[in-house]
Amino acid sequence: MSALIGNADTDYRTVELVHLFDKLKMLRAFVFDIDGVFTDNRILVTDTGEYLRTMNVRDGLVVKMAIEAGFQVGIITGGRSEGIRKRMTDLGVSEYYSGVNDKWPAMQSFLQRTGLPPTAVCYMGDDLPDVPVLRKVGLSGCPVDAIPEVLAVCDYVSPLPGGAGCVRDILEKAMKLQNKWK
Amino acid sequence: MSALIGNADTDYRTVELVHLFDKLKMLRAFVFDIDGVFTDNRILVTDTGEYLRTMNVRDGLVVKMAIEAGFQVGIITGGRSEGIRKRMTDLGVSEYYSGVNDKWPAMQSFLQRTGLPPTAVCYMGDDLPDVPVLRKVGLSGCPVDAIPEVLAVCDYVSPLPGGAGCVRDILEKAMKLQNKWK
Amino acid sequence: MSALIGNADTDYRTVELVHLFDKLKMLRAFVFDIDGVFTDNRILVTDTGEYLRTMNVRDGLVVKMAIEAGFQVGIITGGRSEGIRKRMTDLGVSEYYSGVNDKWPAMQSFLQRTGLPPTAVCYMGDDLPDVPVLRKVGLSGCPVDAIPEVLAVCDYVSPLPGGAGCVRDILEKAMKLQNKWK
Amino acid sequence: MSALIGNADTDYRTVELVHLFDKLKMLRAFVFDIDGVFTDNRILVTDTGEYLRTMNVRDGLVVKMAIEAGFQVGIITGGRSEGIRKRMTDLGVSEYYSGVNDKWPAMQSFLQRTGLPPTAVCYMGDDLPDVPVLRKVGLSGCPVDAIPEVLAVCDYVSPLPGGAGCVRDILEKAMKLQNKWK
Repeated sequence: MSALIGNADTDYRTVELVHLFDKLKMLRAFVFDIDGVFTDNRILVTDTGEYLRTMNVRDGLVVKMAIEAGFQVGIITGGRSEGIRKRMTDLGVSEYYSGVNDKWPAMQSFLQRTGLPPTAVCYMGDDLPDVPVLRKVGLSGCPVDAIPEVLAVCDYVSPLPGGAGCVRDILEKAMKLQNKWK
Repeated sequence: MSALIGNADTDYRTVELVHLFDKLKMLRAFVFDIDGVFTDNRILVTDTGEYLRTMNVRDGLVVKMAIEAGFQVGIITGGRSEGIRKRMTDLGVSEYYSGVNDKWPAMQSFLQRTGLPPTAVCYMGDDLPDVPVLRKVGLSGCPVDAIPEVLAVCDYVSPLPGGAGCVRDILEKAMKLQNKWK
Repeated sequence: MSALIGNADTDYRTVELVHLFDKLKMLRAFVFDIDGVFTDNRILVTDTGEYLRTMNVRDGLVVKMAIEAGFQVGIITGGRSEGIRKRMTDLGVSEYYSGVNDKWPAMQSFLQRTGLPPTAVCYMGDDLPDVPVLRKVGLSGCPVDAIPEVLAVCDYVSPLPGGAGCVRDILEKAMKLQNKWK
Repeated sequence: MSALIGNADTDYRTVELVHLFDKLKMLRAFVFDIDGVFTDNRILVTDTGEYLRTMNVRDGLVVKMAIEAGFQVGIITGGRSEGIRKRMTDLGVSEYYSGVNDKWPAMQSFLQRTGLPPTAVCYMGDDLPDVPVLRKVGLSGCPVDAIPEVLAVCDYVSPLPGGAGCVRDILEKAMKLQNKWK
């Protein structure tokens, strides 16, 4: 913070970034919310009252690559959708929690089943139910269009909005820092 | 309007805002149009001629929170969709009027059934059929992409367009002003 | 074009506009293309190879109002969709030509069946197959995102793109000029 | 690069463009990726876990015109969709490779079946699996929203994003240069 080493704002930002890189290097697992992260929060309501989501092929490709590279990937979602569960299974996701109102117990279950400490886990969410989990994991991330309460608590704000590649963005950053990007 | 108390434009805007806050504090119920408010006015036309709507998960979450906080929430829509009716029922909406051409009688029925005066009710709509109702309720609201005739009569224009969170925006504002936002 | 009556550019624009208003006042019928006019050219491809279109509720409302006000409304589309046909029938459209490769004969059939001269008809389209018809009707219109070849031949370019209200825009303009807008 | 013939940057760009025009004139076939080229990478996930794509009518019209003008058109996609296969067959596409993980062998099969040299073929893709093919064909193309690794290796970057007309853009450019555009 001395004038000798430059502008205080620059120092602060540099410190933040080093910190973020350290956190990204520690990660062994990624847990994602569905609505607003893998999607843009929109749901197509069918005649029978089912909700269909629109996902991004680019996110899916890198979820698969991350799992093949040895990362654990989990889902904790408030919604219930057999189609999304099937897609996540196809991509190699083994931990899938749906219809979850209180997300922290689901994350505790994820930690117990994987044997990982919270510091090794990244969680990405966009709305109020995600805040308790975001406060407790090693790296908290969100899309750029997350609500203000989420933006305020996140270590990393992806420049991409939900459904447009924010999942791939954070996976790709971690894989590159850990030399696991081919 | 005296130079002693500052610029006339500023005064006017301040008066407007105080008025809006007063109105938001009086509200006990919210009634919404569907197309152009919960949606962006687009309908997916199926082979059998059904119309499927795309809704926003963020709107739904706060509709549920508002009902849990004690607000009445109703729907008055020109459309007919079993899927939307089912979603609204799931969110806790008890007053649902569909296939409505003339919206004011439906609003009168809502007022009678809830026992509320028009001043305690907010209505949000975006197109011509909504104007008669918007003129008579306690607080009239619309998304930023409402038609000019609607923008002209509304107390509150949400900065968000239909389907992108305008429902949540107005509910959140009222709940915060009434200390019902958790 | 004399300096006495002002700037030459202004004169030119004024002449154009008067001309457009005259044409709008003459109209008794509107014929529309579907893809790129009622829609944004996107089709959702189902498992069975059907194409589902997304339409705009605001366009539909004013198509209905125009028909109730006495205008003839027709459709000439290259596509085939039972859902779209059903929606158009519900809105009151009686002349519906689908699966059309060569659009001018379909327009000739429309003129014969309605007994109207081409000068009383507006046609709105956005792509190559629409050009022959646009050249021959009383008023040629297109959305702002029509292809350059279409923009070049149209009397009126709506400021709205396909699927976002260009149909309503031109109907509303004609109805207001003819004092048929309620 | 001499000051006598103008600015070095201008020279460089001119040389590039002449090269591109030469390549476009050599083309006899076009092979496309589906996701991110014919689409914007979004997939609608159904209840049963099928993925539905949204395509653009304007792309389809010119694919058909290119085939009628004598060009070969093929598809190499990582996805599997009966609906997309059916649409491509309807447009006249005869070479369709789906569920492809390694795209270069599929392209080799296309070359063998059509008897064309790589220099006569344009390939358009947007993501990592497309890079090996883009490096080896006569003309490599991509939509403007391709990933950086793809943008870096492409001869031609369409100004349009995937699903918004990039397929038509490159077909139209080649057909016009070869005097096959009607």
